[in-house]
Amino acid sequence: MIYLDNAATTRISDLSFESMLPYLKENYGNPSSIYKLGRSNHQVIENARKQIASLLKVSPAEIYFTSCGSEADNWALRGIMYAYKKQGKNHLIVSKIEHHAVLHMAQALEKEGFLVTYLDVDEKGQVNLQQLKQSISDKTALVSIMYANNEVGTIQPVHEIGRICHENNVLYHCDAVQAVGSIPIDISNIDLLSASAHKFNGPKGVGFLYMNKKVKIDNFIEGGGQEKGRRPGTENVAGIVGMAIALKENYELMEEKNKRIEYIRNQLQDSLLEIPGSHFNGDEDYRLPGILNISFEHIDGQSLLFELDLKGICASSGSACNSGSVEASHVLLAMGVPYVLAQGALRLSIGRYNDISEIDATITAIKDAIKYLKK
Amino acid sequence: MIYLDNAATTRISDLSFESMLPYLKENYGNPSSIYKLGRSNHQVIENARKQIASLLKVSPAEIYFTSCGSEADNWALRGIMYAYKKQGKNHLIVSKIEHHAVLHMAQALEKEGFLVTYLDVDEKGQVNLQQLKQSISDKTALVSIMYANNEVGTIQPVHEIGRICHENNVLYHCDAVQAVGSIPIDISNIDLLSASAHKFNGPKGVGFLYMNKKVKIDNFIEGGGQEKGRRPGTENVAGIVGMAIALKENYELMEEKNKRIEYIRNQLQDSLLEIPGSHFNGDEDYRLPGILNISFEHIDGQSLLFELDLKGICASSGSACNSGSVEASHVLLAMGVPYVLAQGALRLSIGRYNDISEIDATITAIKDAIKYLKK
Repeated sequence: MIYLDNAATTRISDLSFESMLPYLKENYGNPSSIYKLGRSNHQVIENARKQIASLLKVSPAEIYFTSCGSEADNWALRGIMYAYKKQGKNHLIVSKIEHHAVLHMAQALEKEGFLVTYLDVDEKGQVNLQQLKQSISDKTALVSIMYANNEVGTIQPVHEIGRICHENNVLYHCDAVQAVGSIPIDISNIDLLSASAHKFNGPKGVGFLYMNKKVKIDNFIEGGGQEKGRRPGTENVAGIVGMAIALKENYELMEEKNKRIEYIRNQLQDSLLEIPGSHFNGDEDYRLPGILNISFEHIDGQSLLFELDLKGICASSGSACNSGSVEASHVLLAMGVPYVLAQGALRLSIGRYNDISEIDATITAIKDAIKYLKK
Repeated sequence: MIYLDNAATTRISDLSFESMLPYLKENYGNPSSIYKLGRSNHQVIENARKQIASLLKVSPAEIYFTSCGSEADNWALRGIMYAYKKQGKNHLIVSKIEHHAVLHMAQALEKEGFLVTYLDVDEKGQVNLQQLKQSISDKTALVSIMYANNEVGTIQPVHEIGRICHENNVLYHCDAVQAVGSIPIDISNIDLLSASAHKFNGPKGVGFLYMNKKVKIDNFIEGGGQEKGRRPGTENVAGIVGMAIALKENYELMEEKNKRIEYIRNQLQDSLLEIPGSHFNGDEDYRLPGILNISFEHIDGQSLLFELDLKGICASSGSACNSGSVEASHVLLAMGVPYVLAQGALRLSIGRYNDISEIDATITAIKDAIKYLKK
């Protein structure tokens, strides 16, 4: 099996897996309990928080654990919009290529009476900063633009976006689910940032939301006193520990692994673009090292994936969260990719555990599959 | 160490732990992905859903996985109230002794303009059914009354509550976080029911919400297509598998374990009520087998817990979720327990892994601690 769907989820690292076991098993105390078995787990969680905060160069008090990236995104949008509604601010700006955790929440808020602007992107997937500036009004509470896109890998100018937001007294939330653990994060102009452990070789079912200390936000989940009363629910201790270890590892290995990942991506890109009727989707200058998106004319993406699955290659046509859907990618359509090409898209996402020995087999398999499907 | 805080969290069972490992590690596919590594995890989740559904005697399509009990409670309340607001129904009824995941969400909804009735309970912690009937109006959308209380163990007449709700065309949500896995669940008159895996020897960070097919509810989390688009976010495969196994085991062992748990509880209760100034809190006729709540006059609950911790006994004064707080339990106050006695409450919660050999040491430790604190 060759796993080339690391943007959907990643294999957990051995260290992350091993680090979780004691907290799944014998160290089962509730971190809110006052006896030693509980208190020590509270300490364990705080250590994980410190570790993550130090990697992002923020304060531990600014990290809140959540159950996943979607929850973090939802919290940021709903929590900020309702908090600022009280001050008469009811306008949200997002890009058209956000993950559905942001887009569908924006649509839900729209139904609840908020005003939402959906920013265009260019053919490379870059938001239009001029349009961003023009869209901001004194009613704007929040801008939510992702760090890097999960389908095409395009990295947004987050520092510049944050600067524009702050010049206009608007908060900036950044869905960094695909970026955290993959590239160094410049958080200096970001007020809220979402991440998910299983995207960086940690476990599924845990993520975090960074919130700058100055941010005023409503709760998303109501309940007990966990996470300073901001995110109730008994903490997923093992998941939090595994997430912190995985992130630390990926930071330590980043330079080395990204060299290999980029090499693999470039080899795949060069070879696949030799195929007649192939089109590159994305931004060759500003992109994640591991994501490669190519459309093939006269090819149905789903059929291609099935052929590749038969050959032992795991890949996708876009976001895994919508793989049941037959709709073309909203990301590619927003980038102006014609519908038929958007339906013939292949996303290969390379991760830490991919090896250069997998390159030739992948290229051969894809070329063979396309030849077969064109018959 | 003697662990008597099974209402806060439980030790994971060996079978549950072992069942999770393959899905934490090698079977890491995203269940939404269409290749085999993903598809097989989709099947694994559906099997877990079937297992849980068959234990509760409901349809698998009525089980939705969540990240915890608090999320399930929040979803039920917010999702139903906003869905029925569209039909002009804006009234919610809860009891005063609900978990804070219900109570604080009810208060949040009140701030958002909904009308909330908080039902009284009697000295045993039983809701007043007459008051329930009188509180229901044609504006009432939902009644949320827990199955069994987490601090005193009192079991509510859920079948009768559900009957009253349905006679009045009102939905019934039941927070069954303490009951599921502990006693057989009569779900026949319940429309929505919340549960949490770590309360029944499963892992932390996963729970579920049962929803009757006929229930119309808004999403709580917005995003991708997981859980039929009702609860987006990449599924916590390992957690879901561990939860199903743990519940199945606890159902199989229920009769046997509850005999032992009740025996231990009765021994502790009889001996501790010999202490001068001790008061039983709860309902001796309708209660969970594993929860015992006793108040001691002139004793500060927190100091008692510290003393017990020094003696290797893990116990609590009430809900772990609020253990940082110095406030007296809202449950005991609602039951009419005087403030000073509510502050001197000790909750011992006995679980599957407690043994009768722990009884004597526990009684001695508590008696010694109380003697010491009274000096």
